[in-house]
Amino acid sequence: MMQRIANLLVIKDNHVLLLKKPRRGWYVAPGGKMDPGESIYDAAVREFTEETGTTPIDPHLKGVYTMMIKDQADEVVIDEWMLYTFVARDLEGVPFKTTREGELGWHPIENLHTLPMAEGDRTNLLFAVSETGLQYGTFYYTEQFKLLKEKIQKSVEGVNRNDGK
Amino acid sequence: MMQRIANLLVIKDNHVLLLKKPRRGWYVAPGGKMDPGESIYDAAVREFTEETGTTPIDPHLKGVYTMMIKDQADEVVIDEWMLYTFVARDLEGVPFKTTREGELGWHPIENLHTLPMAEGDRTNLLFAVSETGLQYGTFYYTEQFKLLKEKIQKSVEGVNRNDGK
Repeated sequence: MMQRIANLLVIKDNHVLLLKKPRRGWYVAPGGKMDPGESIYDAAVREFTEETGTTPIDPHLKGVYTMMIKDQADEVVIDEWMLYTFVARDLEGVPFKTTREGELGWHPIENLHTLPMAEGDRTNLLFAVSETGLQYGTFYYTEQFKLLKEKIQKSVEGVNRNDGK
Repeated sequence: MMQRIANLLVIKDNHVLLLKKPRRGWYVAPGGKMDPGESIYDAAVREFTEETGTTPIDPHLKGVYTMMIKDQADEVVIDEWMLYTFVARDLEGVPFKTTREGELGWHPIENLHTLPMAEGDRTNLLFAVSETGLQYGTFYYTEQFKLLKEKIQKSVEGVNRNDGK
Protein backbone atom coordinates (compact mmCIF):
# COMPACT_ATOMS: atom_id res chain seq x y z
CA MET A 1 0.00 0.00 0.00
CA MET A 2 1.21 3.48 -0.88
CA GLN A 3 2.39 5.33 2.21
CA ARG A 4 0.64 8.50 3.28
CA ILE A 5 2.58 10.73 5.65
CA ALA A 6 1.05 13.61 7.62
CA ASN A 7 3.14 16.20 9.45
CA LEU A 8 2.36 19.34 11.39
CA LEU A 9 4.33 22.51 12.01
CA VAL A 10 3.40 24.59 15.05
CA ILE A 11 4.28 28.28 14.73
CA LYS A 12 4.14 30.28 17.97
CA ASP A 13 5.85 33.49 19.15
CA ASN A 14 7.94 33.57 15.94
CA HIS A 15 9.29 30.08 16.58
CA VAL A 16 8.56 26.66 15.05
CA LEU A 17 8.66 23.30 16.80
CA LEU A 18 11.00 20.96 14.94
CA LEU A 19 12.28 17.43 15.47
CA LYS A 20 15.99 16.79 14.88
CA LYS A 21 16.33 13.26 13.56
CA PRO A 22 19.42 11.39 14.79
CA ARG A 23 20.39 9.69 11.51
CA ARG A 24 21.40 12.70 9.40
CA GLY A 25 20.89 15.49 11.93
CA TRP A 26 18.15 16.86 9.65
CA TYR A 27 15.18 18.79 11.00
CA VAL A 28 11.55 17.85 10.23
CA ALA A 29 8.05 18.82 11.34
CA PRO A 30 6.70 16.13 13.70
CA GLY A 31 4.56 13.56 11.87
CA GLY A 32 4.34 10.03 10.57
CA LYS A 33 2.37 7.40 8.72
CA MET A 34 -1.40 7.47 8.37
CA ASP A 35 -3.29 4.43 9.60
CA PRO A 36 -5.79 2.65 7.33
CA GLY A 37 -9.12 4.50 7.30
CA GLU A 38 -7.70 7.55 9.04
CA SER A 39 -8.33 11.02 7.62
CA ILE A 40 -5.27 13.14 6.92
CA TYR A 41 -6.42 15.55 9.67
CA ASP A 42 -6.76 12.86 12.31
CA ALA A 43 -3.42 11.36 11.28
CA ALA A 44 -1.60 14.70 11.59
CA VAL A 45 -3.07 15.36 15.05
CA ARG A 46 -2.42 11.81 16.31
CA GLU A 47 1.17 11.67 15.06
CA PHE A 48 1.97 15.16 16.38
CA THR A 49 0.51 14.31 19.78
CA GLU A 50 2.39 11.00 19.97
CA GLU A 51 5.71 12.61 19.03
CA THR A 52 5.48 15.79 21.13
CA GLY A 53 3.17 15.01 24.05
CA THR A 54 1.11 18.11 23.17
CA THR A 55 -2.15 18.85 21.33
CA PRO A 56 -2.12 21.17 18.30
CA ILE A 57 -4.86 23.85 18.20
CA ASP A 58 -6.87 24.27 14.98
CA PRO A 59 -4.51 22.63 12.48
CA HIS A 60 -5.05 23.60 8.84
CA LEU A 61 -3.71 21.91 5.71
CA LYS A 62 -1.05 23.93 3.85
CA GLY A 63 0.42 21.46 1.36
CA VAL A 64 -0.14 18.17 -0.48
CA TYR A 65 2.92 16.64 -2.10
CA THR A 66 3.65 13.65 -4.31
CA MET A 67 7.02 12.22 -3.25
CA MET A 68 9.06 10.19 -5.73
CA ILE A 69 12.27 8.29 -5.02
CA LYS A 70 14.27 7.57 -8.16
CA ASP A 71 17.65 6.03 -8.92
CA GLN A 72 20.72 8.29 -9.33
CA ALA A 73 20.22 8.41 -13.10
CA ASP A 74 16.66 9.76 -12.58
CA GLU A 75 15.24 6.86 -14.63
CA VAL A 76 13.64 4.22 -12.40
CA VAL A 77 10.95 5.02 -9.80
CA ILE A 78 11.86 3.20 -6.59
CA ASP A 79 9.11 4.49 -4.30
CA GLU A 80 6.19 6.93 -4.28
CA TRP A 81 4.15 8.34 -1.41
CA MET A 82 1.93 11.26 -0.42
CA LEU A 83 2.87 13.96 2.12
CA TYR A 84 0.28 16.19 3.81
CA THR A 85 1.65 19.22 5.70
CA PHE A 86 -0.46 21.03 8.32
CA VAL A 87 0.15 24.20 10.31
CA ALA A 88 -1.17 25.17 13.73
CA ARG A 89 -0.67 28.50 15.50
CA ASP A 90 -0.90 27.17 19.04
CA LEU A 91 -0.65 24.02 21.13
CA GLU A 92 -1.70 22.77 24.55
CA GLY A 93 0.95 21.30 26.82
CA VAL A 94 4.73 21.36 27.02
CA PRO A 95 6.58 19.41 24.30
CA PHE A 96 8.92 16.55 25.17
CA LYS A 97 12.60 17.44 24.81
CA THR A 98 13.94 14.06 23.77
CA THR A 99 11.98 11.20 22.21
CA ARG A 100 12.78 7.95 20.45
CA GLU A 101 12.38 9.88 17.20
CA GLY A 102 14.95 12.57 18.05
CA GLU A 103 15.32 15.94 19.81
CA LEU A 104 12.42 18.39 19.91
CA GLY A 105 13.00 22.13 20.11
CA TRP A 106 11.70 25.60 19.26
CA HIS A 107 13.64 27.42 16.52
CA PRO A 108 13.28 30.98 15.19
CA ILE A 109 11.18 30.90 12.01
CA GLU A 110 14.00 32.42 9.95
CA ASN A 111 16.24 29.44 10.78
CA LEU A 112 14.09 27.37 8.38
CA HIS A 113 16.29 28.97 5.69
CA THR A 114 19.49 27.48 7.09
CA LEU A 115 18.85 24.45 9.34
CA PRO A 116 19.92 21.16 7.71
CA MET A 117 16.90 19.41 6.16
CA ALA A 118 15.67 17.82 2.94
CA GLU A 119 15.49 20.59 0.36
CA GLY A 120 11.86 19.80 -0.48
CA ASP A 121 10.96 20.04 3.21
CA ARG A 122 12.52 23.51 3.27
CA THR A 123 10.32 24.55 0.32
CA ASN A 124 7.23 23.15 2.08
CA LEU A 125 7.90 24.57 5.53
CA LEU A 126 8.81 28.05 4.23
CA PHE A 127 5.56 28.10 2.25
CA ALA A 128 3.61 26.95 5.31
CA VAL A 129 4.97 29.70 7.60
CA SER A 130 4.94 32.62 5.16
CA GLU A 131 2.26 32.29 2.47
CA THR A 132 -1.53 32.20 2.29
CA GLY A 133 -3.36 29.32 0.66
CA LEU A 134 -2.29 25.88 -0.42
CA GLN A 135 0.74 24.44 -2.15
CA TYR A 136 0.81 21.29 -4.30
CA GLY A 137 3.64 19.59 -6.10
CA THR A 138 5.92 16.69 -6.83
CA PHE A 139 9.41 16.21 -5.39
CA TYR A 140 11.87 13.79 -6.97
CA TYR A 141 14.65 12.52 -4.68
CA THR A 142 17.44 9.99 -4.89
CA GLU A 143 17.53 7.18 -2.33
CA GLN A 144 20.10 9.31 -0.44
CA PHE A 145 17.49 12.12 -0.33
CA LYS A 146 19.27 14.41 -2.74
CA LEU A 147 16.62 16.54 -4.46
CA LEU A 148 16.60 15.82 -8.21
CA LYS A 149 13.79 18.20 -9.14
CA GLU A 150 10.59 19.77 -7.89
CA LYS A 151 7.42 20.99 -9.57
CA ILE A 152 5.17 23.29 -7.53
CA GLN A 153 1.65 24.76 -7.87
CA LYS A 154 -0.18 27.10 -5.50
CA SER A 155 -3.70 28.40 -5.00
CA VAL A 156 -5.53 30.79 -2.70
CA GLU A 157 -9.22 30.45 -1.93
CA GLY A 158 -11.37 33.06 -3.68
CA VAL A 159 -8.46 34.54 -5.66
CA ASN A 160 -9.05 34.56 -9.40
CA ARG A 161 -6.08 35.54 -11.52
CA ASN A 162 -8.48 36.93 -14.12
CA ASP A 163 -9.91 39.46 -11.62
CA GLY A 164 -7.16 41.95 -12.35
CA LYS A 165 -7.67 41.94 -16.11
CA MET B 1 -0.88 0.82 -5.58
CA MET B 2 -3.51 2.76 -3.66
CA GLN B 3 -5.70 4.76 -6.00
CA ARG B 4 -5.76 8.53 -5.74
CA ILE B 5 -8.73 10.25 -7.37
CA ALA B 6 -8.91 13.99 -8.08
CA ASN B 7 -12.14 15.72 -9.09
CA LEU B 8 -13.10 19.31 -9.75
CA LEU B 9 -16.38 21.18 -9.41
CA VAL B 10 -16.82 24.34 -11.47
CA ILE B 11 -19.32 26.82 -9.98
CA LYS B 12 -20.42 29.63 -12.32
CA ASP B 13 -23.55 31.83 -12.47
CA ASN B 14 -25.13 29.81 -9.62
CA HIS B 15 -24.72 26.55 -11.55
CA VAL B 16 -22.34 23.61 -11.21
CA LEU B 17 -20.99 21.43 -14.02
CA LEU B 18 -21.78 17.78 -13.29
CA LEU B 19 -21.28 14.50 -15.12
CA LYS B 20 -24.17 12.03 -15.12
CA LYS B 21 -22.70 8.54 -15.14
CA PRO B 22 -24.64 6.00 -17.20
CA ARG B 23 -24.38 3.04 -14.81
CA ARG B 24 -26.49 4.26 -11.89
CA GLY B 25 -27.60 7.65 -13.25
CA TRP B 26 -25.65 9.26 -10.41
CA TYR B 27 -24.06 12.70 -10.74
CA VAL B 28 -20.37 13.38 -10.02
CA ALA B 29 -17.87 16.19 -10.41
CA PRO B 30 -15.60 15.44 -13.41
CA GLY B 31 -12.35 13.76 -12.41
CA GLY B 32 -10.37 10.55 -12.38
CA LYS B 33 -7.25 8.70 -11.36
CA MET B 34 -3.93 10.42 -10.69
CA ASP B 35 -0.96 9.25 -12.72
CA PRO B 36 2.28 8.21 -10.96
CA GLY B 37 4.34 11.28 -10.02
CA GLU B 38 1.49 13.68 -10.71
CA SER B 39 0.53 16.31 -8.14
CA ILE B 40 -3.10 16.36 -7.03
CA TYR B 41 -3.48 19.80 -8.67
CA ASP B 42 -2.14 18.68 -12.03
CA ALA B 43 -4.27 15.52 -11.90
CA ALA B 44 -7.47 17.48 -11.19
CA VAL B 45 -6.80 19.90 -14.06
CA ARG B 46 -5.81 17.15 -16.51
CA GLU B 47 -8.78 14.91 -15.72
CA PHE B 48 -11.25 17.81 -15.83
CA THR B 49 -9.88 18.98 -19.16
CA GLU B 50 -9.99 15.48 -20.65
CA GLU B 51 -13.57 14.89 -19.51
CA THR B 52 -15.06 18.30 -20.36
CA GLY B 53 -12.91 19.78 -23.15
CA THR B 54 -12.49 22.95 -21.07
CA THR B 55 -9.82 24.46 -18.82
CA PRO B 56 -10.66 25.29 -15.19
CA ILE B 57 -9.52 28.72 -13.95
CA ASP B 58 -7.67 28.91 -10.61
CA PRO B 59 -8.73 25.61 -9.03
CA HIS B 60 -8.39 25.40 -5.26
CA LEU B 61 -8.48 22.31 -3.02
CA LYS B 62 -11.61 22.05 -0.83
CA GLY B 63 -11.51 18.49 0.52
CA VAL B 64 -9.30 15.47 1.17
CA TYR B 65 -11.12 12.23 1.88
CA THR B 66 -10.15 8.70 2.85
CA MET B 67 -12.53 6.33 1.07
CA MET B 68 -13.13 2.86 2.50
CA ILE B 69 -15.12 0.06 0.90
CA LYS B 70 -16.27 -2.55 3.40
CA ASP B 71 -18.44 -5.65 3.27
CA GLN B 72 -22.15 -5.41 4.17
CA ALA B 73 -21.42 -6.39 7.76
CA ASP B 74 -18.99 -3.44 8.06
CA GLU B 75 -16.21 -5.82 9.11
CA VAL B 76 -13.77 -6.45 6.26
CA VAL B 77 -12.00 -3.64 4.37
CA ILE B 78 -12.21 -4.43 0.66
CA ASP B 79 -10.62 -1.31 -0.80
CA GLU B 80 -9.21 2.05 0.29
CA TRP B 81 -8.35 5.15 -1.73
CA MET B 82 -7.86 8.90 -1.45
CA LEU B 83 -10.18 11.51 -2.99
CA TYR B 84 -9.12 15.14 -3.57
CA THR B 85 -11.92 17.59 -4.42
CA PHE B 86 -11.15 20.96 -6.04
CA VAL B 87 -13.37 23.93 -6.86
CA ALA B 88 -12.98 26.52 -9.63
CA ARG B 89 -15.15 29.59 -10.20
CA ASP B 90 -14.62 29.84 -13.94
CA LEU B 91 -13.54 27.88 -16.99
CA GLU B 92 -12.35 28.52 -20.52
CA GLY B 93 -14.18 26.87 -23.41
CA VAL B 94 -17.54 25.19 -23.90
CA PRO B 95 -18.01 21.81 -22.19
CA PHE B 96 -18.80 18.69 -24.19
CA LYS B 97 -22.43 17.56 -23.87
CA THR B 98 -21.91 13.82 -24.19
CA THR B 99 -18.70 11.91 -23.53
CA ARG B 100 -17.70 8.29 -23.09
CA GLU B 101 -17.96 8.93 -19.34
CA GLY B 102 -21.56 10.19 -19.45
CA GLU B 103 -23.65 13.35 -19.96
CA LEU B 104 -22.26 16.73 -18.95
CA GLY B 105 -24.54 19.57 -17.91
CA TRP B 106 -24.98 22.69 -15.80
CA HIS B 107 -27.28 22.32 -12.80
CA PRO B 108 -28.52 24.93 -10.29
CA ILE B 109 -26.37 24.77 -7.15
CA GLU B 110 -29.36 23.96 -4.96
CA ASN B 111 -29.99 20.77 -6.96
CA LEU B 112 -26.94 19.28 -5.23
CA HIS B 113 -29.36 18.62 -2.38
CA THR B 114 -31.60 16.37 -4.48
CA LEU B 115 -29.80 14.97 -7.56
CA PRO B 116 -29.03 11.25 -7.26
CA MET B 117 -25.43 10.74 -6.15
CA ALA B 118 -23.31 8.89 -3.59
CA GLU B 119 -24.23 10.35 -0.19
CA GLY B 120 -20.59 11.13 0.65
CA ASP B 121 -20.25 13.02 -2.65
CA ARG B 122 -23.26 15.11 -1.64
CA THR B 123 -21.55 16.00 1.67
CA ASN B 124 -18.35 16.92 -0.18
CA LEU B 125 -19.92 18.95 -2.98
CA LEU B 126 -22.24 20.88 -0.66
CA PHE B 127 -19.24 21.78 1.50
CA ALA B 128 -17.26 22.82 -1.57
CA VAL B 129 -19.95 25.20 -2.88
CA SER B 130 -21.08 26.75 0.39
CA GLU B 131 -18.34 26.82 3.03
CA THR B 132 -14.96 28.49 3.49
CA GLY B 133 -11.85 26.44 4.20
CA LEU B 134 -11.07 22.77 3.94
CA GLN B 135 -12.88 19.57 4.79
CA TYR B 136 -11.27 16.24 5.72
CA GLY B 137 -12.79 12.91 6.55
CA THR B 138 -13.35 9.22 6.05
CA PHE B 139 -16.31 7.69 4.22
CA TYR B 140 -17.18 4.02 4.65
CA TYR B 141 -19.23 2.47 1.83
CA THR B 142 -20.45 -0.98 0.89
CA GLU B 143 -19.43 -2.41 -2.49
CA GLN B 144 -22.87 -1.23 -3.76
CA PHE B 145 -21.92 2.29 -2.64
CA LYS B 146 -24.36 2.49 0.23
CA LEU B 147 -22.86 4.87 2.81
CA LEU B 148 -22.17 3.01 6.07
CA LYS B 149 -20.77 5.95 8.02
CA GLU B 150 -18.81 9.17 7.67
CA LYS B 151 -16.45 11.07 9.95
CA ILE B 152 -15.75 14.71 9.03
CA GLN B 153 -13.33 17.43 10.17
CA LYS B 154 -13.03 21.03 8.92
CA SER B 155 -10.60 23.90 9.23
CA VAL B 156 -10.34 27.51 8.05
CA GLU B 157 -6.99 29.23 7.54
CA GLY B 158 -6.19 31.78 10.24
CA VAL B 159 -9.26 30.93 12.33
CA ASN B 160 -8.43 29.95 15.89
CA ARG B 161 -11.32 28.61 17.94
CA ASN B 162 -9.64 30.00 21.06
CA ASP B 163 -9.81 33.58 19.72
CA GLY B 164 -13.33 34.08 21.01
CA LYS B 165 -12.50 33.07 24.60
